[in-house]
Amino acid sequence: MTPVDRTGIEILPLDDCKRMLEASRIGRVAFLYQGTVAILPVNYRWHHGAVVFRSAEGAKLDAASGEQLVGFEIDAWDDELHTGWSVLVEGRAEEVYDDIEVAELETLGVRPWAPHPRRNRWVRIVAEEITGRRVG
Amino acid sequence: MTPVDRTGIEILPLDDCKRMLEASRIGRVAFLYQGTVAILPVNYRWHHGAVVFRSAEGAKLDAASGEQLVGFEIDAWDDELHTGWSVLVEGRAEEVYDDIEVAELETLGVRPWAPHPRRNRWVRIVAEEITGRRVG
Repeated sequence: MTPVDRTGIEILPLDDCKRMLEASRIGRVAFLYQGTVAILPVNYRWHHGAVVFRSAEGAKLDAASGEQLVGFEIDAWDDELHTGWSVLVEGRAEEVYDDIEVAELETLGVRPWAPHPRRNRWVRIVAEEITGRRVG
Repeated sequence: MTPVDRTGIEILPLDDCKRMLEASRIGRVAFLYQGTVAILPVNYRWHHGAVVFRSAEGAKLDAASGEQLVGFEIDAWDDELHTGWSVLVEGRAEEVYDDIEVAELETLGVRPWAPHPRRNRWVRIVAEEITGRRVG
């Protein structure tokens, strides 16, 4: 029997969640910022158990530098078929400073959400928890 | 000259943000939950300056009942053209109890993200701040 959560939504097995994370390119990072909950889209890759993306100096990077707990989400929805899924990664964000690691990340082909000369720093969210749900 | 934020991203005028909110159907709600930042997709409508969606008993509704500050985001991305936009709504979530209001919301044609007998309650996020950004 397929496991469901308490509201009847099918729970995605961890392997499926990781496959979705590997296959997707756009996700959203949510974090506390000045007392509010901000959500920003990012172009990302799933790399060695972490979500990695480029960021300019700004709120996303501030959140990262503070090693805040953040959320990261990907989803897809088919309105015709009424089917969809979502995967949520929770973890601590950190900026990647190590030159060798940065060089490796540069090979992944991640474009920043917005092209900008200052958008050249890397943020990593190391997954502490991965959960997924499927509908339909 | 088009206004840009400090990382060079074009800022969407408020009217455009509201148009996007009216036209879109799927968004994501982010909220604090047990010390982490959770993000869940919802089928929603933009109704009288608020995001409204159905919810079962659960985390989303708990967040709503507490009148927590939450974030709500919609976005779209074209990977070929490298263009995209996102709109962020920040506000307080609350459950809608009033029978007349609920009856009105029932006419909007909002399907719950997951069909479930208990997913018949309404949550409203009254927008306190609306911001949008466009790339490309």
